[in-house]
Amino acid sequence: MILRMPLGLSAALSAITLSAMAMPSIARAEDGHQLWLRYPPATGTPDRAVTITAADPLGRPQLKLAIAELKRGLAPQGVQGPFRLMTPADGSWPARYDHLGAEGFALSSRKVGDRIDTQIAAKTDLGLLYGVFHYLRLAHSGADLARLDVVSSPRIALRVLDHWDNLDGTVERGYAGASIWDWWRLPDWRDPIYTDYARANASVGINGAVLNNVNAKADSLTAPYIAKAAALADVFRPWGIKVYLSARWSAPIELGGLKTADPLDPAVAAWWRAKADEIYRAIPDFGGFLVKANSEGQPGPADYHRTHAQGANMLAAALKPHGGVVMWRAFVYAHDNPEDRAKQAYNDFKPLDGQFADNVLVQVKNGAIDFQPREPFHPLFGAMPRTNLMMEFQITKEYLGQSTHMTYLGPLFSEALQADTLAQGKGSTVARVVDGSLDGHRLTGIAGVANIGANRDWSGSIFNQADWYAFGRLAWNPDLSPESIAREWAAQTFSPAPKVVEAVTAIMIPSREVAVDYMTPLGLAHQMSVYGHYGPGPWVNTLARPEWNPVYYNRADAQGIGFDRTASGSKAIAQYSPAIAARLARPETTDDKDLLWFHHLPWTYRMKDGATLWDDLVRHYDRGVSGVENMQGQWQALKPAIDAERFEKTSVFLTIQRRDAQLWRDASIAYWQSLNHLPLPAGSAPPAHDLGWYKALTFPYAPGNP
Amino acid sequence: MILRMPLGLSAALSAITLSAMAMPSIARAEDGHQLWLRYPPATGTPDRAVTITAADPLGRPQLKLAIAELKRGLAPQGVQGPFRLMTPADGSWPARYDHLGAEGFALSSRKVGDRIDTQIAAKTDLGLLYGVFHYLRLAHSGADLARLDVVSSPRIALRVLDHWDNLDGTVERGYAGASIWDWWRLPDWRDPIYTDYARANASVGINGAVLNNVNAKADSLTAPYIAKAAALADVFRPWGIKVYLSARWSAPIELGGLKTADPLDPAVAAWWRAKADEIYRAIPDFGGFLVKANSEGQPGPADYHRTHAQGANMLAAALKPHGGVVMWRAFVYAHDNPEDRAKQAYNDFKPLDGQFADNVLVQVKNGAIDFQPREPFHPLFGAMPRTNLMMEFQITKEYLGQSTHMTYLGPLFSEALQADTLAQGKGSTVARVVDGSLDGHRLTGIAGVANIGANRDWSGSIFNQADWYAFGRLAWNPDLSPESIAREWAAQTFSPAPKVVEAVTAIMIPSREVAVDYMTPLGLAHQMSVYGHYGPGPWVNTLARPEWNPVYYNRADAQGIGFDRTASGSKAIAQYSPAIAARLARPETTDDKDLLWFHHLPWTYRMKDGATLWDDLVRHYDRGVSGVENMQGQWQALKPAIDAERFEKTSVFLTIQRRDAQLWRDASIAYWQSLNHLPLPAGSAPPAHDLGWYKALTFPYAPGNP
Repeated sequence: MILRMPLGLSAALSAITLSAMAMPSIARAEDGHQLWLRYPPATGTPDRAVTITAADPLGRPQLKLAIAELKRGLAPQGVQGPFRLMTPADGSWPARYDHLGAEGFALSSRKVGDRIDTQIAAKTDLGLLYGVFHYLRLAHSGADLARLDVVSSPRIALRVLDHWDNLDGTVERGYAGASIWDWWRLPDWRDPIYTDYARANASVGINGAVLNNVNAKADSLTAPYIAKAAALADVFRPWGIKVYLSARWSAPIELGGLKTADPLDPAVAAWWRAKADEIYRAIPDFGGFLVKANSEGQPGPADYHRTHAQGANMLAAALKPHGGVVMWRAFVYAHDNPEDRAKQAYNDFKPLDGQFADNVLVQVKNGAIDFQPREPFHPLFGAMPRTNLMMEFQITKEYLGQSTHMTYLGPLFSEALQADTLAQGKGSTVARVVDGSLDGHRLTGIAGVANIGANRDWSGSIFNQADWYAFGRLAWNPDLSPESIAREWAAQTFSPAPKVVEAVTAIMIPSREVAVDYMTPLGLAHQMSVYGHYGPGPWVNTLARPEWNPVYYNRADAQGIGFDRTASGSKAIAQYSPAIAARLARPETTDDKDLLWFHHLPWTYRMKDGATLWDDLVRHYDRGVSGVENMQGQWQALKPAIDAERFEKTSVFLTIQRRDAQLWRDASIAYWQSLNHLPLPAGSAPPAHDLGWYKALTFPYAPGNP
Repeated sequence: MILRMPLGLSAALSAITLSAMAMPSIARAEDGHQLWLRYPPATGTPDRAVTITAADPLGRPQLKLAIAELKRGLAPQGVQGPFRLMTPADGSWPARYDHLGAEGFALSSRKVGDRIDTQIAAKTDLGLLYGVFHYLRLAHSGADLARLDVVSSPRIALRVLDHWDNLDGTVERGYAGASIWDWWRLPDWRDPIYTDYARANASVGINGAVLNNVNAKADSLTAPYIAKAAALADVFRPWGIKVYLSARWSAPIELGGLKTADPLDPAVAAWWRAKADEIYRAIPDFGGFLVKANSEGQPGPADYHRTHAQGANMLAAALKPHGGVVMWRAFVYAHDNPEDRAKQAYNDFKPLDGQFADNVLVQVKNGAIDFQPREPFHPLFGAMPRTNLMMEFQITKEYLGQSTHMTYLGPLFSEALQADTLAQGKGSTVARVVDGSLDGHRLTGIAGVANIGANRDWSGSIFNQADWYAFGRLAWNPDLSPESIAREWAAQTFSPAPKVVEAVTAIMIPSREVAVDYMTPLGLAHQMSVYGHYGPGPWVNTLARPEWNPVYYNRADAQGIGFDRTASGSKAIAQYSPAIAARLARPETTDDKDLLWFHHLPWTYRMKDGATLWDDLVRHYDRGVSGVENMQGQWQALKPAIDAERFEKTSVFLTIQRRDAQLWRDASIAYWQSLNHLPLPAGSAPPAHDLGWYKALTFPYAPGNP
């Protein structure tokens, strides 16, 4: 904008000279919609043309997608030299790649003179597509493309997103707007967003999507909704993604007019067989059913005094002829069961080990309660060697600040996967249970409850996208480090410049521990308010079911705090392998991070460093608040490197998080002090308000509530 | 893509040569998000630079927006020559523009040698902004920019969108996804979409937004929600848009702890005064309240035996010191009132004429029932000369096929505005009631229930955007022709190429009449199914309130069909001026399009052309179906001229519309035939199914239901 003083006009006048050439009509909006697939324009001059060689691409839709993706991502990189995509049909297939799985790929490159020869080999076109995405991941993360040698196959067979999306367009525990499924206009209108969704999933190796909420409506199994699901399946198929449906157990009654849903009733089994046949006519590669049965009010086989195995196997038999699977959730607990909620799933499922059909996976949450900021690994892992055990993570952050808090989940996922069950001695990690290697299972799976909605940025914030990304990468290889995943993501999402990557990663890595500190430190859990699990509510004791109340979990009183799960308490530790149980039996040998999960301790209990439990607890809260402050400062320092829109959004969200962290700290401390009347440790500020003020806070219309 | 046969490889191999330069990494997505403000790149070479001259732009945010918009829209047009933006403060203000209103502008240009001198003059910077938008509208519609001479001021003062958006993110009667208001993250996070929204509104002259549903929650008047509304007001302010809130009548009880909401109770009035003061502290230019009182279950002054005027005036007194207004809806009818629903609003409000405070507008729907595909104009227009009467249109298409049917509403709006009430002789149009000229009112208003949601295309379809656009243009000037508005919109939305403009306009103009034909021809109304007012349900007689049932409106039986509103029936025609009532007293002098709205007639009644009513009715249904077929054909012919994404979406929607039109026709005919047992006229095909099939159709999870 050039200002000048025009002659003969008021002195206040000025003029702006506008160069038409310098004004692009549309600025490229960095609104986060491109996710980690931004493929930013090259800064330098593009080099010579690339020649992509592949066997006849006609009639090979996945190969076409692979080539198109390669062109899209390669173009600005100025890569040169021949690029070969190869499958065994090509004739010159090297024997050393024979061990690749159906989805695996081998990626290699070498410098020949001034050009780079690159080759991606795979047994299938889907493998080629995954190889292309991996190549582009490397290309846009700053890798040296001249000396690649990567051989990679997924460790887990079913890598699935669970959408808790309702047929009315809302999303249970969704914090990114409405559902992206436009059920009303399906199957006619196939929104381009479905392709974008499938592409993003394929780029991180996700190969399945459960379309509807586990709190399922029978309608999703009616003919119109099967047709709608089939339309989505058609869009997803070239990207290697199968659709699954959450099945309502009582559908034979609600849709079929039967009087029962008893799994041993032949009419019920026949109804499900016919329903499976109907679905497979519309969706020949339908993945199968996800079932939440006898859990939080959902119907199930226990209504007919049948076991979970009897229920799952009946459905499995209906799907078996078509190659489908049943993913049967182990998330069960009963309001009329006085047993420690953390023990109930184990008690119900452990005795059924060996009874499930071979196309059933029992889907177990990472912890025994419900997706808390931190939970010890679920004791069912390692305890059911004759069962296909599938992991269920929650990518959407029901209990971790939802859409606005930055709490990178890579460390949470990895912590659970790397936990050692000791089931078959050292190294019996949860990852090895889930990938089947520990017990020799071939049908393996991992599910993440999606954080995807219709918001332009998909996940409610830019950084929540990293959780989707990390889930996919860990589903492919559970042993990847969360740090390396964060680096990859940061490079692709913002910039491969090392200082940007390092700075963004440095914010992400501690962020989950920061949230644990300001929300539920030292093994506390489920202290969230009644308003959508967002703010603090450690005092809450009025919810309908005892195990929904924070006081059930903190057990705090004048003397102490924590849930005794040792021999003197609920005995939950006995569900772990003996060596672990022995360690957990005493607070001194229990990791501080799980301390109050397993032990009820006096406020004056001496921690390993000599501080009292109370002082240490307060220190953790303080550390949580200052941790967010650090994140704010680190983010501000990145301002020159980040585009305005994504910078501002993240900046505002960190402001919200800082305020919420203070609220969590102050409200929690105010409540604990109302019980223990202890002074705060030196240097720790009193809560800004009295307890009554915090108790009076309401958060109406919190999103994501069922 | 160049294919070649490489040497030494399998004959099936081929190669693709990729030119890096030729591959832009991001194609510009024509997803409809740009609305009519696409400012497409110029096809030719840009000409020389433009010099924009304006008085000191510092400290003048609206002037800055005007200049920025001009640069954005001008750049690719290659316009040359000086461009002057002028206000009276500039010194050389021409006296001939003194009559411009605060929002008006004068636009002129002339050719001087090989350059064009252009000038926009306005009394305010908002006027300049409107002038810039009008200039760009002309520039992108193919106007001759060398000889402009436009002087324009809005005819109506308050040009408002009513958002029926709920605080939980849903939208009542919304068919374009969730609400764009992210209440949960307001006031902190000001989504850039709010700016886009304000800019789009400003571009068509809309200057107000009621943020929340008329079925209001009291929460919207609490301090946290006032702060959220204030954040939106801050974003909107530079674009000339004021925020309003729907006020829940019983808020003094729900929020204030009062025992009553009686408008004559001093404590109630004091509560509202304090609430208004609180709102104005946060939003100094707050527009005022919209109120739905004693209507469809909402509380209101009648609960205390007070009149609408007493209720409205109490609120008006609270707003008056701040310059705010009350928009009080006349949409009232009572389930326990046996009177014809079409008469009730008139009966309730007409006697109150002259009793409303001068900052009250009574907001009257265009017709006496509820936003039907066609209604005669509301008899209150012309009947309350001493009251500020405001028009309420529904832009969202609750009864007109919702998001998927193409039914351009310009003709519907214009038909209502151009209807002659004859209240003060010929030419007493509804437009002149609404713009205040008929009765000398200065406080005038027009509201449109918004069709805006979080869908990427804003309105659920590309063509629904035209209804938002047309509402704004008619609010500015109610005498614009819907054809000219369609042309403007088509030129900006697709292409100014005359053949594109003509073809798109040719599809749009008859589209509403086509929908009338397949849904509710010849004056029928409210024949929609119980499933969200989408499909046909002329047989429905089971809804809780008699006047919610289609049978209440069609009154069809073995002998005839239609609602007798003459002297032999409900006498509703007496609510119109005597000359109109005389015309409506006999079917022979009643326009066919309103025939069955006013008359119950035998199936064998002879129409003006000699055909029986039954045969003519069937012909209308047939015409509706063939009308959609025509639209499909015309759209297909446009394929070469329209980008792929918007073409395909519209194409798919027309397929849905064609199927729905058939459904409407067949279901309606099947039901009428079940009553009259008459044969179809020659050449008319029988319904595809029997009546039972249509009655059994269900449409669960229809969007937009409360």
